[in-house]
This record gives sequence, structure tokens and C-alpha cells, in this order.
Amino acid sequence: MNFTSIFNISEPQNFLQEALQHKQSPLAHRHLGQGKTLGLIFLNPSLRTRLSTQKAAQNLGLQTMVVNLNSEGWQLETEDGVIMDQGSQEHIKEAAGVISQYCDIIGIRTFPGLKSYQDDYQEKILSAFVKHASVPVLSLESATEHPLQSLADWITITEHQKTSKPKVVLTWAPHPKVLPQAVANSFAGWMRHADVDFCIANPKGYDLDPKFIPGIPVLHNQEEALQNADFVYAKNWSAVAPYGQKIPVEKDWSISSQKMALTNQAYFMHCLPVRRNVVVHDAVLDGPKSLVLQQAENRIYAAQAVLAKQLTAVAETQAVCNTIEE
Amino acid sequence: MNFTSIFNISEPQNFLQEALQHKQSPLAHRHLGQGKTLGLIFLNPSLRTRLSTQKAAQNLGLQTMVVNLNSEGWQLETEDGVIMDQGSQEHIKEAAGVISQYCDIIGIRTFPGLKSYQDDYQEKILSAFVKHASVPVLSLESATEHPLQSLADWITITEHQKTSKPKVVLTWAPHPKVLPQAVANSFAGWMRHADVDFCIANPKGYDLDPKFIPGIPVLHNQEEALQNADFVYAKNWSAVAPYGQKIPVEKDWSISSQKMALTNQAYFMHCLPVRRNVVVHDAVLDGPKSLVLQQAENRIYAAQAVLAKQLTAVAETQAVCNTIEE
Amino acid sequence: MNFTSIFNISEPQNFLQEALQHKQSPLAHRHLGQGKTLGLIFLNPSLRTRLSTQKAAQNLGLQTMVVNLNSEGWQLETEDGVIMDQGSQEHIKEAAGVISQYCDIIGIRTFPGLKSYQDDYQEKILSAFVKHASVPVLSLESATEHPLQSLADWITITEHQKTSKPKVVLTWAPHPKVLPQAVANSFAGWMRHADVDFCIANPKGYDLDPKFIPGIPVLHNQEEALQNADFVYAKNWSAVAPYGQKIPVEKDWSISSQKMALTNQAYFMHCLPVRRNVVVHDAVLDGPKSLVLQQAENRIYAAQAVLAKQLTAVAETQAVCNTIEE
Repeated sequence: MNFTSIFNISEPQNFLQEALQHKQSPLAHRHLGQGKTLGLIFLNPSLRTRLSTQKAAQNLGLQTMVVNLNSEGWQLETEDGVIMDQGSQEHIKEAAGVISQYCDIIGIRTFPGLKSYQDDYQEKILSAFVKHASVPVLSLESATEHPLQSLADWITITEHQKTSKPKVVLTWAPHPKVLPQAVANSFAGWMRHADVDFCIANPKGYDLDPKFIPGIPVLHNQEEALQNADFVYAKNWSAVAPYGQKIPVEKDWSISSQKMALTNQAYFMHCLPVRRNVVVHDAVLDGPKSLVLQQAENRIYAAQAVLAKQLTAVAETQAVCNTIEE
Repeated sequence: MNFTSIFNISEPQNFLQEALQHKQSPLAHRHLGQGKTLGLIFLNPSLRTRLSTQKAAQNLGLQTMVVNLNSEGWQLETEDGVIMDQGSQEHIKEAAGVISQYCDIIGIRTFPGLKSYQDDYQEKILSAFVKHASVPVLSLESATEHPLQSLADWITITEHQKTSKPKVVLTWAPHPKVLPQAVANSFAGWMRHADVDFCIANPKGYDLDPKFIPGIPVLHNQEEALQNADFVYAKNWSAVAPYGQKIPVEKDWSISSQKMALTNQAYFMHCLPVRRNVVVHDAVLDGPKSLVLQQAENRIYAAQAVLAKQLTAVAETQAVCNTIEE
Repeated sequence: MNFTSIFNISEPQNFLQEALQHKQSPLAHRHLGQGKTLGLIFLNPSLRTRLSTQKAAQNLGLQTMVVNLNSEGWQLETEDGVIMDQGSQEHIKEAAGVISQYCDIIGIRTFPGLKSYQDDYQEKILSAFVKHASVPVLSLESATEHPLQSLADWITITEHQKTSKPKVVLTWAPHPKVLPQAVANSFAGWMRHADVDFCIANPKGYDLDPKFIPGIPVLHNQEEALQNADFVYAKNWSAVAPYGQKIPVEKDWSISSQKMALTNQAYFMHCLPVRRNVVVHDAVLDGPKSLVLQQAENRIYAAQAVLAKQLTAVAETQAVCNTIEE
């Protein structure tokens, strides 16, 4: 059972419910991971994701082994059929196959290059890893999605919603660097399964990939979108076309107290790390409606729900194998 | 309960006594850390501190998660109110707040810049971390103090002293690089609570910050200071004024067998890593009176005493919270 | 009990038998490591070795602490008597001595410089580490040997051999970089203890150090060597004389399906990472006779057999010490 994309996860609501249960009793399933190992493979830096996933693993009695593959391991080749007489030292085929010998589940983080839409949106590295691994794979953020983040965000909304169908706004915000669309894609993808009134606000030219936002209202006027919002999720992303570019934006899209005043006393959300006074003003981030630390905390239970399901699936597979061998 | 400075630790003798007890029975409290997590955050390299603290945690049944924040995480911003449109990727506010979600205790190492006395002696980074963390903080060496080292040193002196009030000399020694004052400050700060006859020897211009050495004799003649010493602790540090500078020193302040012959067959101490034949001659370091490995070993029990107290404090706080919630 | 070289291991067959038993019941000895710690020290990158050894440790209930000494620690000095006023920050004497305070067993990886035959074949760094450590040392690959790899290779051959005395061929293969002789030396050294018909094929100028291949047939004609082989182990290494050099090779020594057709339907082996279509063609590596993943898996049980023996030796030593103290 892989957990890599909203498009291959059945019953996302089920993950939400189980995550809430793990939060109630974090150590209730601490025997599930006994004698088992989670490999966490990072091709890109990580703080929240690594620590929250390690904590989730600990709660499940699961051992973790962390590899910063770029600095500690070998440079990976992803193309098939290549003559490897240049810089690449190991093919992803062997890397994924070998790590599968030592781990019962593999988590992997890989960022987009933001050069080629094709490469990134085909999830070249993650797909190759999934193809060649012989154990379940968990995305710790890939080129185009960040499912553990989105599940944690959904938990946080569920915990704080005051009405049965709250209005949730995902709004683009400025940033000095060119960033992936992964968090935005993923949040949109997951919100489609939530019982919320969801819309996206972004400047013209910053519309997300249609695959992730079918039927979702996209507004190019931020102030209009913020009206009556119960939750405001701010995030920067680069343009999808021209791919990975910055397009000039006329107005100031950062989130200030003035803008939050347009909402229905909305909560403020961000996945962190956040550029203070660029994406969001200090007054909002440090104010009583900021949920950023709660989102971070819920990363534990999002990961725990997924790992518990994967461990259960692993145990069932092993039971079947043992029966066949007998 | 933070453990960051001799100036905010009550009853340092109590830590000494408890450390000696942990050394007697390292695994006696191995249930204290069950289900709990220690985060070890390094902004600077570490060998002894990391391994000894990890070992202490293991002895207490406490899980550890290690983060080399500079290479694995994001560049931290420490200034308040800043517009983060430059290199810094995450504010220390969020970093400390987020790590607090995943850890029950946070250890942090941060070195001084040695550029600004103000920045370093205000412990800008450590203070910001303590302020924004919601769990107890443990200093793994900061800009101006290294309390776990000093506690380990005190344990070592206690174990080896032959008289009721031994003479302990902290002496400056040469070094090719410009080094912090942290170990020297900290050793002086802790020795004031020990039942020892303590003095410091350093060249003119190298007097430590007055805050750490009130009433402690400072000699500028090394040979005079070494007379009748029972323990000689050698360490380099840079000048406090002009801050972080090297000042020309006329005599050779390295510790040789000849100099040790002036003492009362003194033990030699150093916190390591040590520059052989610069700080101290091989003959002394490799001789029978060298305690450097014993000091290193005692780092385990220093850390264990502190972590055990912090875990106990955490457990008491949680018990109070649970009672209030009920 | 150190495990560093085929020349100081008594009864290598015994390790083979015990490794096979650990593979049968990986968790049967999970109490052997309780309360004990394995330090894994890397002076060079590692993927397979680190993960497989960590997994082996987990199976034995042994805690691990990983140190990437170059990036996380201090630059080591290995020369004796040196005045350390240059780049080196810590002498290997102190590093080994200190790590011994925190670990019950130390694994260390260090690669050759490939500049000086003397330095490398005297195993300058490993030897210094062994000399100054006060606990058992485990080689995670050194300048001239890779014993855990060779033990895993032997396990794999034993599991797949169809005849009582299979023909095993170690063949040199091309590579874009200059590589150590460690894997080849070690495989040859261990195969001398196996019940196999063993020979080596390499181009003229690439004969291994005589110490490792006494009495072993060395052929300079690869096709002749491959005749009737049951196992083909491909590996590149640089010349021993002139030391660490590339010598022009006329023929193509990479392993293709055509070459494998010369064998007795041989299995293909390689220690990984492998340069595809340089060392070996995709068709062979991806074919049904490739054992590279099985070799990788057996790294766990090779490490587990060694660690279990070292833990048992440690326990016996401690028992003796306790008796003496009583």
C-alpha cells in the first residue's frame, strides 16, 4: 500500500478518522511496529517532516533509519538504459531495491527541478522509486504533492471548524524564491474530499494544474475570495505555465490583519517554514487565530495514521505469504 | 526546567550527587523516558556532546532525534520584525515552536560568532530558542557556557580528589585558532559552588568576563599558579576585550611535564578535542595523571542527571495538567 | 574481538554458519544487545553498509549511534608526535578513546587515499583506531578489505550453489573512476576458506596484492576464465603497481550476456553500487541470474553474526571483570 498521491488513495476520509483516533491515544498501537523498520530517504532538506514522521514511528514502536542520500550516499541515475560512465554512481533501480531489503516501509522526499513540467508532473524520481521498491512507499513530499501535509491540514481544520461546512480559502502569497506547487496541489486535491466550501485565490497566471482543481472556483481577486472565510491557507507557488517561473504581480498578496478583517474571524494556516512579513505579517502569524503550530503537531498523527495502515497491510501480506509457504 | 546557565540552576551540588548515583546504576531509571523524545539540535559540530547525551538518553529509555540544522534544515532568522525576503528561510520562533511539538526536551548547541560581545553574551540564539520553545531546553554548549561539560568535570574532580579541599587551577593555553570562552566561563562558574581552592591563570589581556569570576583569584604568572595544584585544567580562549581577538603572549603557556612537576602531582584535565603539543605535550596527555577520557565518560552521567530531572519535571507538569483537565 | 581482516579472523566458516542461523531466525537473539550501543563511524559515504548494519543491530536489540565524522565531527590527526597547529583538530587517539566511552562496539569505515601503497596497505587509520579504542572494532570497509561484504557474498554463494564445489570467478571490469582493491582483496581472501574452485580474471597489470591471493590462479584472459563458471563476481579495482593507477586495457572487460553464455549458466554477483552498462550490461543485471539484491540482503546477516559474536565476547569480558572485582 503506497501513500504518494491523492489520486491513488482510496477513502481519504478514512485516514482523517484514524488520525484523530491516534491523536486521542498515541501509544495505543505501539506494538504494531515491533521488529519493523522505516527508512526515511531525503533527497532534499526536511525538518518538520522528518521529526514528525520519526515521532509517529516511535509511537508505533517502529524503528527508523534516516538517510540524507545526497550527502551520505551516492548520486542517483534515473534514466533507463544509460551508460553510467559520468557522474551518477548508482541507479535508482538498485537504490530502491537495496533499501527495500532493510526496511519494511520507505519514506522518500524529492523536490521538483522546476525546469521541466513533464519531468516534475510525471514524478520521475518518486515513480521510479515506487516501481523498483519491493515494500510500501510513503511520500514525504514529492515534486507535485505533499500528502502528509494536506492530511495534517485537514485534521487541523476538522478540529477547529465551528460550522458544518466552513469556507476554506487557499490563497497564493508572495515569496522571494521560486517554489514548487506541491503543497497547493495537494491541499486542493484533499479539500475536494472534505465537507468544506473551498476556493482558491491567486493572481492571473498562477492557476494550478487543472488535474488538481477540477470544478474548484479560482478567483483572481484575493479580497473577494477572503470574504466570510473561516480558514485562510496562505502559500506561495511558481507558475505552472510558463513552468516554474515568476510572473509580475501588481497588488500586494501578503496576508495582513486588514485582509484577515475581511473574513469571518478566520483561522490562519501555513505549512511552514514561512517568510515573515513577506507571506504573512507578524501580527497575523503571532495572533490568536494562527494555527501553524497545530498544523505542525498534526503532522505526527497524519503520519501515524498512514504508517499504521501500511504496517497492517505489510502484516497481512506476510501472513498470506506464510500460509502459502506452509 | 531549563538547563542552560550556571546562573539559572538552583543547587548545582544536587546535580553532582545525582550524576554520581546514575553512574553507579546507569539503567536504574530506564523507565523514566519511556514514550518520550529528546531532540538534539546542532547549529555547530559535535562529537562527545552528541554521543554522550544520546547514551544518557538511551540509559533513561528516552528516544533521541538528531538534527544538524545547518545542513539538514533551514537557515534561521533570529531578529524580530524582520522582512524575511533574503537568505533566512525560517524564523527561530517557528523552529523552536515546531520542534517543541515533537520533543519532550530539546537540547541545542550554538557557538558564538566572536564578532559582537553583545550578541554572544546575551546568548541571542539560545535565549530566542528558550523563549519560543514550549518544552524544557538543555544547552549542549552555547555562546558563553558549556554546563554539561563543567558538571562532568566536577564529577571527575570529585572522584579523584585526595584531600578535602583540593587546589584546582584553570590555565589558559595556546591554540592556533580563535576560540570561545564558553568552557572556561562555565568551569569557573561551576567551581564557585565546589568545595575547592580555585584560581585561574592566564596571560594579561585574557581575563574572563567578570560576571563569571567574581572573587576568583586570577594570576598572570602560570608557574606561580601551578604551585601545589591538585588539578590542572588547560583550555584556550580568546580575549574578552578586544572581543574575540588574539593578543600576543610572551611566554610559552603550553602544559609540559616540567610545568606539571611544579604541582602536587596534579591530575591533568581538558575537555577535548585538544591540539597535541600546542595546548599540552604528549607526555602529559598520555601520562598516568591525564583524566581526559574520564571527563569524557562522565559526560554521560552529567547529561543523565540533567535529563532525569527534566523528565521528572515534565511528568509532574503533565500530571498537574491532567488533574486540571479532569 | 575485532573483526577487521581475514588475517585476524579465526574460523571464518563459523561466521558463515552463524549468519545462516541468524537469517533463519533474525530476532532469536534480540536480548543480546539490550542496554548496549553500537557506534557507526563514517569517514566515507555509505548506504548499504550503514543500513544493513543498523538493521542487524536492531535485530539484536542493540542501539546504534551514527557519526559522519568528516561533516559532523572534527578533522582527525593520525600521525604520532605531531605539533597540531595546522588543520587537524583532534587526534585519532582521543577520538577512538572517547567514542569507546560511549559505545560497546565501534564500526568504522575508512577508504584508501590511493596515493601511497604503504599508508593504505598498513591500514594506517583503521590500525590507529583499533590501537586506541578500548572496545571491539568492526570494519565497515577499510583501505584494503571489506570483510562484511565478503561474508555476505559467501552466504549468497552457499545459498545458491547447485554443486558441492562450484566454480567461482572474480573478474575485473571497467569503471570511469580509480577504485580501491578492498572488495576484490577481501573476496579473494575469504574464498580461500570456502569449498569452491576459485580463480581471478584481470587484465595484465591489475594483479592483486600477493598477500591476498597466494596459490590462487590468476588468468589474464577473461573468456577463458568464465568457461564453466557457476558464479561470476565482477568488480573494478585500480592497479597495485603503479599504485592506484589506471593502466590501458585493450579488450572490453564488461560483463555482457554473450560472456555469461560462456559459463555454466552462472549467477552474476556485484557488491553495488554498480555502473550500469560499464561494469555490466542491463540485460545481465536485470536478468534472472543476478544475485545483487540477495547479496545486499545478506549484508544484514553477515553483520548480525559478527555483532552477536562481539556482544558475546563483551559480555564474557564483563563477567570476568565483575568476578575479579568481587
